[in-house]
Amino acid sequence: AAPPISDPMWGYFTAIAGQDGEIDAEELQTCLTQTGISGTYTPFSLETCRIMIAMLDRDMTGKMGFNEFKELFAALNGWKQNFIMFDQDKSGTVEPHEMFKAITSLGYTLSPHALNCIITRYSKNGRIFFDDYVACCVKLRALTENFRRRDALQQGTVTFQYDDFIMCTMTI
Amino acid sequence: AAPPISDPMWGYFTAIAGQDGEIDAEELQTCLTQTGISGTYTPFSLETCRIMIAMLDRDMTGKMGFNEFKELFAALNGWKQNFIMFDQDKSGTVEPHEMFKAITSLGYTLSPHALNCIITRYSKNGRIFFDDYVACCVKLRALTENFRRRDALQQGTVTFQYDDFIMCTMTI
Ligand SMILES: [Ca+2]
Ligand SMILES: [Ca+2]
Ligand SMILES: [Ca+2]
Repeated sequence: AAPPISDPMWGYFTAIAGQDGEIDAEELQTCLTQTGISGTYTPFSLETCRIMIAMLDRDMTGKMGFNEFKELFAALNGWKQNFIMFDQDKSGTVEPHEMFKAITSLGYTLSPHALNCIITRYSKNGRIFFDDYVACCVKLRALTENFRRRDALQQGTVTFQYDDFIMCTMTI
Repeated sequence: AAPPISDPMWGYFTAIAGQDGEIDAEELQTCLTQTGISGTYTPFSLETCRIMIAMLDRDMTGKMGFNEFKELFAALNGWKQNFIMFDQDKSGTVEPHEMFKAITSLGYTLSPHALNCIITRYSKNGRIFFDDYVACCVKLRALTENFRRRDALQQGTVTFQYDDFIMCTMTI
């Protein structure tokens, strides 16, 4: 069923999704650019848009419907607020020590070593830009969800078969 | 020690690496473009270059030395031959059924379901371009290595702690 006409996201979405009611990574990039969510930051790269789709694409079609788009948009707004808050010197980038706090504030319990490795991976010249910050948050959320779904007793350990390990890490 | 002057890769590398003898993802992109390895294909994206560095960056500095660069270059040549071989209709892209065979030929034993999910993730409009093909090969190799290193008895299963799981999947 179509959502109420008053939903402002519906306009952005349908203009691009067309008849099938789903958007792929290129269309998501256009969609997000039009909503202006990146503000003064660089628009999202195609790779980050693919990661965003992969995070929510439970039926593995490589496409995203309207409900998933809204879910993504809400998550993006949260991460944007978080990014702005942790960019304390207002440089427009989050520096490693700020990123350390930002990831921790999202509720992930990781060792300093893991945090340092992650931060190095998403930095450019020692800074984390908004696009990479979002890519990092999306992957962290998706991989954590994949892990927890298999950790039924919440013991913090999961035994993976090779095939399952590759599938749930390669598709993010 | 410096390699023999006759090594043609040394010229490409040192011109860019400068004094520290290491290159980051932006420099790797320049380096690979200059070697002409992409041929008529689109040059490697920055994201793919970061994945390449992550694959070989055992000390997690985000940079690559000359020996790692040579190791990467050899792997890239292998993947390029593989790509050309499996692009049977010479369209310049590998289609899903061709990709299925290409991954299998690299020696990875994956279920059809896992293969389909992976192929969807690296496709654009139902085709796999060289840059994405390489990103896929690099990740597959790095994740498989991470898995096998923990699967000492080669049983095809690994029990991961959450922290270790996140570290070895987020940094690829
Ligand atoms: Ca800052
Ligand atoms: Ca290094
Ligand atoms: Ca082809």
